[in-house]
Formats: sequence, structure tokens, C-alpha cells
Amino acid sequence: MSFIKVDANCDFSYQNLPYGIFSTSDSVQHRIGVAIGDYVLDVSQVAHLFNGPCMKDKQDVLRQSTLNQFMSLGHLFWKETRARLQELLSESCPTLRDDKELRAKAIIDRSKCKMHLPAQIGDYTDFYSSRQHATNVGIMFRGKENALMPNWLHLPVGYHGRASSVVVSGTPVRRPVGQMRPDDTKPPVFGPCKLLDFELEMAFFVGPGNELGQHIPVEKAHEHIFGMVVMNDWSARDIQKWEYVPLGPFTAKNFATSISPWVVTMEALMPFVLKGEEQNPKPFKYLQHEDPYMFNINLEVKLKPGDIDMEKTISRSNFKYMYWSMKQQLAHHTITGCNARPGDLLASGTISGESKDSFGSLLEITWRGSEPILFDSEGKLKRVFLQDGDTITMKGFCQGDGYRVGFGECTGTVLPALNIE
Amino acid sequence: MSFIKVDANCDFSYQNLPYGIFSTSDSVQHRIGVAIGDYVLDVSQVAHLFNGPCMKDKQDVLRQSTLNQFMSLGHLFWKETRARLQELLSESCPTLRDDKELRAKAIIDRSKCKMHLPAQIGDYTDFYSSRQHATNVGIMFRGKENALMPNWLHLPVGYHGRASSVVVSGTPVRRPVGQMRPDDTKPPVFGPCKLLDFELEMAFFVGPGNELGQHIPVEKAHEHIFGMVVMNDWSARDIQKWEYVPLGPFTAKNFATSISPWVVTMEALMPFVLKGEEQNPKPFKYLQHEDPYMFNINLEVKLKPGDIDMEKTISRSNFKYMYWSMKQQLAHHTITGCNARPGDLLASGTISGESKDSFGSLLEITWRGSEPILFDSEGKLKRVFLQDGDTITMKGFCQGDGYRVGFGECTGTVLPALNIE
Ligand SMILES: [Ca+2]
Ligand SMILES: [Ca+2]
Ligand SMILES: [Mg+2]
Ligand SMILES: [Mg+2]
Ligand code: NI
Repeated sequence: MSFIKVDANCDFSYQNLPYGIFSTSDSVQHRIGVAIGDYVLDVSQVAHLFNGPCMKDKQDVLRQSTLNQFMSLGHLFWKETRARLQELLSESCPTLRDDKELRAKAIIDRSKCKMHLPAQIGDYTDFYSSRQHATNVGIMFRGKENALMPNWLHLPVGYHGRASSVVVSGTPVRRPVGQMRPDDTKPPVFGPCKLLDFELEMAFFVGPGNELGQHIPVEKAHEHIFGMVVMNDWSARDIQKWEYVPLGPFTAKNFATSISPWVVTMEALMPFVLKGEEQNPKPFKYLQHEDPYMFNINLEVKLKPGDIDMEKTISRSNFKYMYWSMKQQLAHHTITGCNARPGDLLASGTISGESKDSFGSLLEITWRGSEPILFDSEGKLKRVFLQDGDTITMKGFCQGDGYRVGFGECTGTVLPALNIE
Repeated sequence: MSFIKVDANCDFSYQNLPYGIFSTSDSVQHRIGVAIGDYVLDVSQVAHLFNGPCMKDKQDVLRQSTLNQFMSLGHLFWKETRARLQELLSESCPTLRDDKELRAKAIIDRSKCKMHLPAQIGDYTDFYSSRQHATNVGIMFRGKENALMPNWLHLPVGYHGRASSVVVSGTPVRRPVGQMRPDDTKPPVFGPCKLLDFELEMAFFVGPGNELGQHIPVEKAHEHIFGMVVMNDWSARDIQKWEYVPLGPFTAKNFATSISPWVVTMEALMPFVLKGEEQNPKPFKYLQHEDPYMFNINLEVKLKPGDIDMEKTISRSNFKYMYWSMKQQLAHHTITGCNARPGDLLASGTISGESKDSFGSLLEITWRGSEPILFDSEGKLKRVFLQDGDTITMKGFCQGDGYRVGFGECTGTVLPALNIE
């Protein structure tokens, strides 16, 4: 255990040690931090203490303003750094514990830290890998018989998203303006989105990439995955429905995608690994792996309406409700020779469980708006889609024996649309 | 005119002065160059000569290894820089002309310059804005009656592409491996793409961007457009057909996208501006502009089979065959509040004219493979899609009175697929 006390329900246990990029009002420089309990270890202040065989010549990587270089180093470097972090933070190691001056500089109240994007995201990709979500959407749009598209069970369907508008938790999200066609018998209309939704997702950051024209074999994929965050893929359903044929979602998704600021490493998550569901049909060899690579991560979504001081949990889901694993996603993404780069972000797609209270979007929870969420017994305050001022907060954590490996929050509040003719 | 003589058929006239990033064997540093005739002006060597009111405090921007900072400055800075370049290169200005030492350092044989990507591309977007191309593809896949999707005439349909695999002309392109389903009555198969195609496109680089949650009004869009390149959006038709429903093209397009290295500025292109076709239905106001913004840019595609020493022009098209203008594309891309950034790349989509000899892809030229391209009268050597070793070269130029404003080449040769089970 650490000399820094951590509450049993705190996301940032000694077993977690997630990485993030932060600044403080005293020092506006963006720098690498590690969250533990109510504190952040300023890694730039202790970089000189990383003297292992891998990191001794790479200490400068720990002084960067993004995690990209650290991500690029690979799992041997990550492992050594984590082991040294655990040592430096342990009860028994005096190096940091007994150095008052260093502690004062390097250990900062988490409440004083402003969080930033953990990496410069070269490319962001969104998959569609929860079977229940794909089935729900399929039933709504094509009926029960044709719910899953023919390709869905053969490959992890995905699309390229917009990297520039990935924002860190806490960034307000402006309601988009655009074209919609609410009535198919009439011409399209222009104005603020009326069907603004969230999508509960998780995403992983790529570590070392691959050269263009090469690929990442599924059996090596784990070594290319640095860690994970919780993600909200804000979605304008009405804009999406009108624009997405035949080239996929575009402006309906590119106005904001929020991620939690702390990247939980795969090393911290491995104790919570699970076997996924049997895949039938058996995928092609480039997608096969025998070892388990699903994760037991509890997820929840809270909605706080802008007009009352009350927050309601509207979904409890779990990352284990995935059909395609992150290893399969990365192997598929690069099978054609596409080059991944350190800091690329690959998202799961909306994560929905089997029951309505575990669905990952308002589209599904309210079943296309037909079953409103009620905030009081009389149904005076209800929601089908998001209103201005509403706040969506997502959380995720793995439950260990007396500790948590958690992700903190991914939150965002809806701002009113711009007034555009 | 310039003291550097330029052939009337050379793409890089005194009226052009496109920007690129180059290095030489003597100096591997990536730096900004301006092409003129058979030479490149090394801008880093003359940056101190840019003393106008805008650029005098921004000379360092001219010493960068990408054009992103220069792109970010905006049209007043671009205009001043271009005027000063024309002055420095003119017959009548002695500053560079008579300074032998400076000329030796700053004017380099173009044949000695290795070209690189002009900018770090934060996000790459591909539109679908040629009506004839969308109609051709529509006829092939849905029949004549439903050729254009209902949204096509209302908004510039587009999708997010893969930024990491945008490569500079000359980079070989490896044939992708992936999943296909050539026979709908049988399960999908895995292996090298058999229907490898090119797409003749042009693309523009964004200059100053916009803040997240704001938009770029169509009437301001021109000030956000830096310049253009010729682009080949390599496409695996068989992979695309199987994967693209419902989220759009993904691995079928992410293995390589080639661009010509010289960015021709909008200032150099404005003398070739044309009025576009009347848009009916009239688009929403956020997409309306009265001033002409189509461009008379001659385009051609040559195919050189790997197995003979002969090159054939297989398409002659023109950028004027666009329905949606670049101003409309940028206004639409940002209407939801999506933030554009300097160096973003927005592509036209395949540019097809009305006749078969002006179509912009093999899919269309060979009409899905049913009308092969013959390389000899006996039909011994023919092509429907690309074979290993084949080279596609695209060119583009505007014809002025006794001079050209051209783009140089966008070329790439197909390498055999990786051997993956
Ligand atoms: Ca999504
Ligand atoms: Ca294209
Ligand atoms: Mg999004
Ligand atoms: Mg491409
Ligand atoms: Ni990108």
C-alpha cells in the first residue's frame, strides 16, 4: 500500500495509477500526472528517479506535455515505469515519503489540477462492437428479422471519426445546428438538432504503431494497447438519419466527443479480464485469439436536467457486453496496411447490455422517444432526448477486493445552439 | 516575369509559386520551398527578406518544417508573402538575382529535392461532390431511378477519412488484404483485394480554423482555404462493398491516400475561377454563395501497367465538374460546430465528367469491370482493376495565356499484398 491513504471507494487506488495531463494555476505548463487518492503525483518532478534499464535514457519522455512519447515506448517501458511508481509511492520506500521538499513539489491536491487531453490524437476511430446495441438500432430501423447487418458477425464494423473535436471531460458541448428531415414526405429542414443524444462508450489509446503497409497481428495487439478511458460520443440523431446514407455518420458526430482525463493502463486492468462470448461464426484467423480480452468494468450514466437540482442514474452497463475485443478491433483496423500511431484513439461503440436499464443511449433507453425517462412520479419532468442545460456524467470502475480501479468521470453539459439562419 | 526562365508548358510558372516541403541529400532538414520552373526556392534561406507589415514579425513561420503555421496566418499574410516572392523572383529586382552567394544557397535544382507531406494533417475528410460520379455509382448499385440519394442535392455528403495514411506522391501503395464477399450466396472470403481502384480527386488545405462550437460561414469560407493539391483516394472496391453498411467506407480506403506535393494557392487559382451549375433545389442559406467558386483545372490520369513500358491516358477530366463548391463543403463541415484546424485536408470526392473518357475511377471507366481498358488492338494487355506493379499518375493544370498554373504529379505504384493467412 501507499503512504498516501486511499478510500476503498476511490477510483484512483494504489493498484490503479492512471496517467493524465494536468496543469495548475501556479504552473500552467501541461505535464504528466498520476492520480492516487485525492492527489496527483507530478511526474515531471520525479522523472529523475526513473533509473531502470529501460527508462534511464528516456526520462525526458516523462517531462512532455502529452503522453504520446510515453505511449510510443511500448510495454517493457510501461511496466518498468509502473513498478517504479508503485515503489516510490509505497509505504516502505523513503525516497519520496521522507523528502518533504520533493513531496511538496510533486504531490498536488487533485482538486487543484485542471485536466487536459492526455494525448495529441492523430486519428480517432469509432467501432460498433456491442451486439445488443447493434441489434437494438437494427430493430428500430429495419425490424427484428434484419436487425444485424450481414457483415456484423464477421468483422468489427467501424468508421473514422473526427479527431479535432475530441475534448476532455468537463468541456461544455454546444447543441449542433444542421439539416434534418423529420418528415420523409416533406423537404428537409434546417435548425438546431432536436434529438441530441449521448453514447456510452469506452476507448483505448494506441501505444507503438505500425508502419504503413504492414499490420498489427492479433497475437501482438495487446502490446500496442496502452490504456483506456470512458467516452461519450455525443450524437445528433436527426442530423444523422438524414445525412448518413451512403457514407456513414459525419456532422451528426463531429461536434464533440468527450473522454475522461485519466488513462487507466492495461496492466491495471488485467486483473479484471474476462472471457468473451463464443463467436459464431468463427472469425477469420486474423481476428482469432484464445486468451480472454474482455474486461469487467462497471459503467453508469447519470442525467442531471438543467432545470432541477437532481441527478438520476439512467443506465448501468458493463464493458464486458462487447462482442469484438480491442485486440480484434486493432487487428482489423490495420489488416489492410493502415498505419496506427501512438495516441490514436479507438472507441468501442455504444455499450448496451440486455435490459433497458443497461442500454447505452437515449435512443435505446427511450426506444426512439416512445418511453420517456421520468424524473418524478407525476411525469411532469421527463426526458426523451437532451435539453439545453442537461448534464451527462459517465463513470466506470473495476471492483477489486477492497479497492477500485476506476476511471473518474466523463461529464459534459449541453449549451444552447448558435443562432444561425 | 522571373529571372528564372520557365517553359510555357511547365506547371510551375511565375504566376503559380506553389508551396511545398522538401529536403535534399546535402541537407535532410525538412523546409519550405516554392517551385518555379526547374528550380525550388528554399524559403528558409530568404526568410529574412520578408519585411512587410504582416510578415516582419513572422519570419520564423517561413523556417518551419511544415506549412501548418503559415497556413494558420490567414489571407493577408499569404498575400503579402506571395507579392514579396514575386518581387524577389522578378527580372527587375536585384536582391536575389544579383546576390550570387544567396542564389547558390537558396535556388536548388528541383530534381535534387525530395518532397514530403506539405503539412501535418490533423483530420482528413472526403466529400462526394461530383454529381456525375455519384450518379454513376448510384446507377451501378441501385439502378437509374434511384441513382442519387435523397440527401445528395441538399448537402455535400462526406465522411471522415484516415489522416495517418495520407502520403506524398511517389510513395508505393501496398495492395490491401481484407474481407470481401464476392458471391452474396456464399460466406465472405479473406485475402488480397482483387478490385483495387484509384479515385481522381482534388483536395484543399484549411488555413485558419474555427473554435469548437462555432462555425465558418459560407461567406467567410474563402479566407479559410489555403490552397489545393491533386489526390488519389486509392480504394479497395471488394472490401468496401462488404464492410461499408451502415457506417461507411473504413478499411477499404484507409491503407493509402496520395497527394501531389506542391500546394497551389487560391490566389494563383483565382484567375481560373468559373461559375458552377445552377443548384436546384436551392440549398439552405448556410450553403448559398453568389460569387463563382468552381475552377477550370484540367485533370488527367495515366495508367502504366507494370508488365510493359507504355503509359496510357485513361481519363481526362476537369475540376469544374463539381456540384458542391469548396466553400460549401467547409461551411457544411463546420455547421454543427466542428472545429477545423490549419492543415486539415478536405477532398472533393471522385471527379467524373459526363463521358466515359472523363470518368474518375476504374469502377466507372470499366463500368464495374464489364468494359476493360485495352492497351493493344488485340486486347492481349488489358485492365479492369489495378494489378501489382501498375502505376497511376494524375496531373492537373490551369491553362493561362502562355503559362500554366499546374500541380505537378500525384503518382503511386502498386506493391504486392502481404502474405497473411
Ligand atoms: Ca458511437
Ligand atoms: Ca473518395
Ligand atoms: Mg463523436
Ligand atoms: Mg484514401
Ligand atoms: Ni486525424
